[in-house]
Amino acid sequence: MTMIDGLECGPFDRESFLRLKAAGVHGVVVTCGFWEGALESLDSLGRWRDLVRDNADVTCMGDTPEAIERAAEEGRVAAIMGFQNANLFEGRIRLVEMFAELGVRVVQLTYNNQNELAGSCYEAEDSGLSRFGAEVVREMNRQGMLIDCSHVGDRSTLDAIKASEKPVAVTHANAASLFPHKRNKSDKVLHALRDTGGVIGCAAYRNITGDYYSGPIEQWCEMVARTVEIAGIDSVAIGTDRGHNMDRAIYDWMRMGRWTRGVDYGAASAARPGKAPPPDWFQELEDMRVIPDGLRSVGFNNEEVEKILHGNWMRLYRATFRTSDRYEETQQ
Amino acid sequence: MTMIDGLECGPFDRESFLRLKAAGVHGVVVTCGFWEGALESLDSLGRWRDLVRDNADVTCMGDTPEAIERAAEEGRVAAIMGFQNANLFEGRIRLVEMFAELGVRVVQLTYNNQNELAGSCYEAEDSGLSRFGAEVVREMNRQGMLIDCSHVGDRSTLDAIKASEKPVAVTHANAASLFPHKRNKSDKVLHALRDTGGVIGCAAYRNITGDYYSGPIEQWCEMVARTVEIAGIDSVAIGTDRGHNMDRAIYDWMRMGRWTRGVDYGAASAARPGKAPPPDWFQELEDMRVIPDGLRSVGFNNEEVEKILHGNWMRLYRATFRTSDRYEETQQ
Repeated sequence: MTMIDGLECGPFDRESFLRLKAAGVHGVVVTCGFWEGALESLDSLGRWRDLVRDNADVTCMGDTPEAIERAAEEGRVAAIMGFQNANLFEGRIRLVEMFAELGVRVVQLTYNNQNELAGSCYEAEDSGLSRFGAEVVREMNRQGMLIDCSHVGDRSTLDAIKASEKPVAVTHANAASLFPHKRNKSDKVLHALRDTGGVIGCAAYRNITGDYYSGPIEQWCEMVARTVEIAGIDSVAIGTDRGHNMDRAIYDWMRMGRWTRGVDYGAASAARPGKAPPPDWFQELEDMRVIPDGLRSVGFNNEEVEKILHGNWMRLYRATFRTSDRYEETQQ
Repeated sequence: MTMIDGLECGPFDRESFLRLKAAGVHGVVVTCGFWEGALESLDSLGRWRDLVRDNADVTCMGDTPEAIERAAEEGRVAAIMGFQNANLFEGRIRLVEMFAELGVRVVQLTYNNQNELAGSCYEAEDSGLSRFGAEVVREMNRQGMLIDCSHVGDRSTLDAIKASEKPVAVTHANAASLFPHKRNKSDKVLHALRDTGGVIGCAAYRNITGDYYSGPIEQWCEMVARTVEIAGIDSVAIGTDRGHNMDRAIYDWMRMGRWTRGVDYGAASAARPGKAPPPDWFQELEDMRVIPDGLRSVGFNNEEVEKILHGNWMRLYRATFRTSDRYEETQQ
């Protein structure tokens, strides 16, 4: 049984891919950037592409659904290039196409703060999708990029689902009705995903999962089962939000970027500011191996387990990822 | 008889392509930038790509030799994306590959001033190729971009020819032994081009051509014939340096960019600072039609005329342009 992880973060190394392979993961959306502008994003993307190329025995670019399937067959881990913010476009609509040609397949409309496109889950007021946001949604549809709304506010997320001609992802979040947190999604959003072919990746990050669902694997899988009750079996998958090689500087960049001289805790809080301990069942990356049996233990049959682990993401990727990087073939 | 123009500049519009077609040109290297950094170059490239896409009945991307040949058959003008400076890379080696994937095929190592790569023809001291310059030459070889040395100093040009594993271009300049000007190339450079399969595009810009060779077409073709005597029939082609829709702001940007608060005249001079009048035979772009007969009138046979107008550039493009934009296929 192979798995796709809808989102991980932090700087990968060769070890990351070896451990993902040992965990049974054959596809993962990586985080190439949080606050980086266009040029910094090119730098980051260049380094990620080199990492993939330099470790071609264990990984490959996950830039087409076929490449991801092939990775599973070959025992490699397809790295799907993603950004958790739209800052890479720097307000330029034409950069959507160019970043798509360079291999980027998943972009979140905004990260923890409001930007030119949309409101964030942490803003007091979620503006909804802006004019430029609507342009980017349309262009991402055209250029074969998956729209991610994990950190986007509920109102902007609903706007994006409505504006998008293709289904949308919440790559890493949980149901707010199961664990209330600004980062988690209302049932209204989960229903909208269900009704439009979108997918939510259930997170395994303690700050947005809560202590109960961060207990033994059966309890996390109970959360998945309840999410399926809300969003339907075709719209629930996995997006652990697992970090690789995280250190203080990376947390600081993730949370504060350059936008404040003060302190921001992201999904953490002043009361629990540090690194959240991983779920009890998820001490090491390789522990993801327990997920399939965990899902069965809470009553999912094999077909359902396959959808959650692999099929739902693949269907969404097939519906949204571009199939060619050739300029000529995107000329219409 | 179709022609390739090794370099033109200025902002094209639909009319530019229609007129080039009327002139018998089916391939042209355009100037997407002079001083622009990476992000500004993406902006410019994006606009050029849109211009090509929006006028697909008369133009196409000249990103492969096949596309350029096909343009000739279909009566279109292939636009080959070029930059007259390496500022688009902003000191980042990985951007060579990414700009290549986005369609850029010709980059000049430096424009009128010394940069991180090389010395310019106008510097008092030409440093020769720098360490980063040598890296970029190798990377352009690998990534399928043609190296242009038109404004590069002689010493740096000879270094580049030596460092490059593939032949190099001087897309738009003349022989300094025929018309002495800092922008023109020594016989030593022309011999090095000849000995390595490189090509020089004879310019039709009065400031670097001189009044005699800017007379009737036979006189300009006499200059081409003398250039062939120096560089050989396989290394001489056309690179008019013609400008489209040029105005004062564009000349100022070309010459001064952001590098001086003073005045710089580029190839002009304080004595003749303004726009140089075009050669007598080249009042309108469509006048390029007279070139084939002009070349015959100075004694070239049909095979030689074909090399000068088309064959030499095509051979060089085949030797240097990448054949695929797919990341996977450039993984070795």
